[in-house]
Amino acid sequence: MSLKELAMKLEDFAKARDWEKYHSPRNLLLAMIGEVGELSEIFQWRGEVEKGLPNWEESEKEHLGEELSDVLLYLIRLADICGIDLSHAATKKIAKNAIKYPPN
Amino acid sequence: MSLKELAMKLEDFAKARDWEKYHSPRNLLLAMIGEVGELSEIFQWRGEVEKGLPNWEESEKEHLGEELSDVLLYLIRLADICGIDLSHAATKKIAKNAIKYPPN
Amino acid sequence: MSLKELAMKLEDFAKARDWEKYHSPRNLLLAMIGEVGELSEIFQWRGEVEKGLPNWEESEKEHLGEELSDVLLYLIRLADICGIDLSHAATKKIAKNAIKYPPN
Amino acid sequence: MSLKELAMKLEDFAKARDWEKYHSPRNLLLAMIGEVGELSEIFQWRGEVEKGLPNWEESEKEHLGEELSDVLLYLIRLADICGIDLSHAATKKIAKNAIKYPPN
Repeated sequence: MSLKELAMKLEDFAKARDWEKYHSPRNLLLAMIGEVGELSEIFQWRGEVEKGLPNWEESEKEHLGEELSDVLLYLIRLADICGIDLSHAATKKIAKNAIKYPPN
Repeated sequence: MSLKELAMKLEDFAKARDWEKYHSPRNLLLAMIGEVGELSEIFQWRGEVEKGLPNWEESEKEHLGEELSDVLLYLIRLADICGIDLSHAATKKIAKNAIKYPPN
Repeated sequence: MSLKELAMKLEDFAKARDWEKYHSPRNLLLAMIGEVGELSEIFQWRGEVEKGLPNWEESEKEHLGEELSDVLLYLIRLADICGIDLSHAATKKIAKNAIKYPPN
Repeated sequence: MSLKELAMKLEDFAKARDWEKYHSPRNLLLAMIGEVGELSEIFQWRGEVEKGLPNWEESEKEHLGEELSDVLLYLIRLADICGIDLSHAATKKIAKNAIKYPPN
């Protein structure tokens, strides 16, 4: 699914629940940071974690997917409420990074 | 652009710069949190901010788009390195939220 | 209580529970970020909050005190594990800030 | 130095610079999160870090002390502006944790 489609889904979701009044930029930012905290908790007592999470239970990966999603969804909603086209901004940022850090 | 396409772009980007050795889950998580900090700095001394950022300079919106993108790109890369299909996880999370919070 | 006394209390606490093996710098940092997330959750849907929290319930202030403490305790423990004298560093930082930002 | 003394120093600091108008709870919280981001950046590309930071340069430890202090100072200021006695709250939280997690 595209970022734009997710943003539209989240707008519909908020409208259907009369949540738009809560979705100010700083409220959404703090909500996102709350989710970043939950994501960090998953990694906090593990020491270094290997790529692909070889020794994780399926339920732990499921939980991780949910916390990553929570951060993503608030991030998309925050961008949308601020009137930022996140897909466009991200593509531009990658291009800018490619100039700043030329390939080897 | 889809999340999957962005994940592939970021993988190519890391490979071309020999950065894969740095992209462990906890390294990427901390890098993402660094960007969350930069995003927070944009909002820190402003008091409440209105939707659509009516009084912001174009250059401030540009900067905001970059910081939102930095968080997004590390989040996508973190999910990818963990072997999580973020698009799938996000869609599932929205469906789960729709059950948890029924519309009015 | 001084920062030094709190650091010593936390070291004793960890020793008595055989938790020292978990208290690596990055584990503690991520644990602290988890608590920053919980602190943010308290403020997330409130819009602007007034100094002194005039309309907050006593139980909400209690909760806030606990989350602020959780961040503080992990921060003190992180500094201690890194061998940083936080009290000394903080005093120095205030002096440095006083030069950077001269009073009006 | 005690937490109370640091809180008083920070209040004087803000008053002398006419910064009190900026020191609302959510502004200070976001400023603290900005500093948490800078703290995370120090640890982001290092992989696991050993206690005591055996291989760190003196200048890196100095930098770490400054970022830890920045988080601490905003945390103390946030608590103070909220009317929370952080020293009291932290002592209570340790006592509560001691009951929740009895020693071995």
